[in-house]
Amino acid sequence: MHYQLVMIRHGESLWNHENLFTGWTDVDLSESGIKEAIQGSILLKDAGFHFNVCYTSYLKRAIHTANYVLQGLDEEWIPMVKTWKLNERHYGALQGLNKSETAAKYGEEQVKIWRRSFDVRPPLLDKNDSRNPALQPMYQSVPASQLPLAESLKDTVARVVPYYEQHIQKDIQSGKRVLIAAHGNSLRALVMHLDHLSAKEVLDLNIPTGVPLVYELNHQLQAVGHRYLGDEQMVKAKMLAVKNQGAK
Amino acid sequence: MHYQLVMIRHGESLWNHENLFTGWTDVDLSESGIKEAIQGSILLKDAGFHFNVCYTSYLKRAIHTANYVLQGLDEEWIPMVKTWKLNERHYGALQGLNKSETAAKYGEEQVKIWRRSFDVRPPLLDKNDSRNPALQPMYQSVPASQLPLAESLKDTVARVVPYYEQHIQKDIQSGKRVLIAAHGNSLRALVMHLDHLSAKEVLDLNIPTGVPLVYELNHQLQAVGHRYLGDEQMVKAKMLAVKNQGAK
Repeated sequence: MHYQLVMIRHGESLWNHENLFTGWTDVDLSESGIKEAIQGSILLKDAGFHFNVCYTSYLKRAIHTANYVLQGLDEEWIPMVKTWKLNERHYGALQGLNKSETAAKYGEEQVKIWRRSFDVRPPLLDKNDSRNPALQPMYQSVPASQLPLAESLKDTVARVVPYYEQHIQKDIQSGKRVLIAAHGNSLRALVMHLDHLSAKEVLDLNIPTGVPLVYELNHQLQAVGHRYLGDEQMVKAKMLAVKNQGAK
Repeated sequence: MHYQLVMIRHGESLWNHENLFTGWTDVDLSESGIKEAIQGSILLKDAGFHFNVCYTSYLKRAIHTANYVLQGLDEEWIPMVKTWKLNERHYGALQGLNKSETAAKYGEEQVKIWRRSFDVRPPLLDKNDSRNPALQPMYQSVPASQLPLAESLKDTVARVVPYYEQHIQKDIQSGKRVLIAAHGNSLRALVMHLDHLSAKEVLDLNIPTGVPLVYELNHQLQAVGHRYLGDEQMVKAKMLAVKNQGAK
């Protein structure tokens, strides 16, 4: 083993709780989500982890997860890089709908296709919709042509992986210990890349929330193994919870 | 007016509360200090302020103040630059002593000189003292020759002002709205520079905690005016509290 890379998926948000499609909607962690971040931090601390830099998204549920983890490690002074490239998959016009409303509007089968396909986009946002990222102050420094109106998982992979290769890899190669606090689908994209998963395999991948995922990389930055920190039963239960959330 | 620059001094920390010399000791905000940060955030929000970048120190009482302010403004996604150059004045071997212990050990007169002089350093830390920044993981990327064992206010000015000129000014000049969340003496250093204060004048300057201080700068980045946000009586009461804390 030459390098390590640690990822953590944020825990429950206020909208997970209400079973709404979230995507790029900037909702906060729920009380349970805060506890999951703190628990993840304890696992890292107990295993003796330290970091030199932390990457996260523009979304506060990931930023707060990063803050809680670094607070627990007493490493809040390290640089934190926030980038929209690590945002959750953009769920287009579905954002803000609950899962039964969506099924009533578009049909159960169609919803299953959007959730369980690699390259099908959900319905696009209208350009004039206030949810269009190009209309939000948060994304005003990003060229509008780069911002999505909806994303398939394939689209998410196509923005996450080049960012990883152009920015995060450099830090790892320079010997920095990197933590990434992000989302279910941006982390799936990264794992797909690291483990050379197929489109089918990545859809079967359920990354548990709040559990540090440690990748071992060789000197060419190829993944040679990975593990979750914490009790195996707990990790399995969390994976199942994530899977069932998708199936509801 | 061409540009604005906003500063905020962190509020009460756990050691202010116990009347200990703090300096670079990385103690957290007290409950009152958290309330002060949130109150500062409300003043900024009510006055319609927005920011594009936030600078803060390596110390968590300043980082947390920045976090609370940005959370209140719903701008947590902006870049936050953390630098030891904006740390509090280093109080050398006095760090961790309470003010009466210090008076008993060194004499009342000597303590007054350390507190109320511009260019006299408190007793230096021993190089092997665990409080020496050069021995702490937090400062391992900084050349040891740059790190202090104790600072006069003059020393603090000598690190804060060049950092401001080399980094923060560039952001202001490029049109970015800059927030600085820092400490009593690092902000005094900045105000000394902006307002061309003498050594005597800067010692008489008492920056209130948790109150946003807004500087107006002309196109050459010269200060043409400043004001505190919030009720004038509250600001005066806070200035007096800061002054009396020094006199205790």
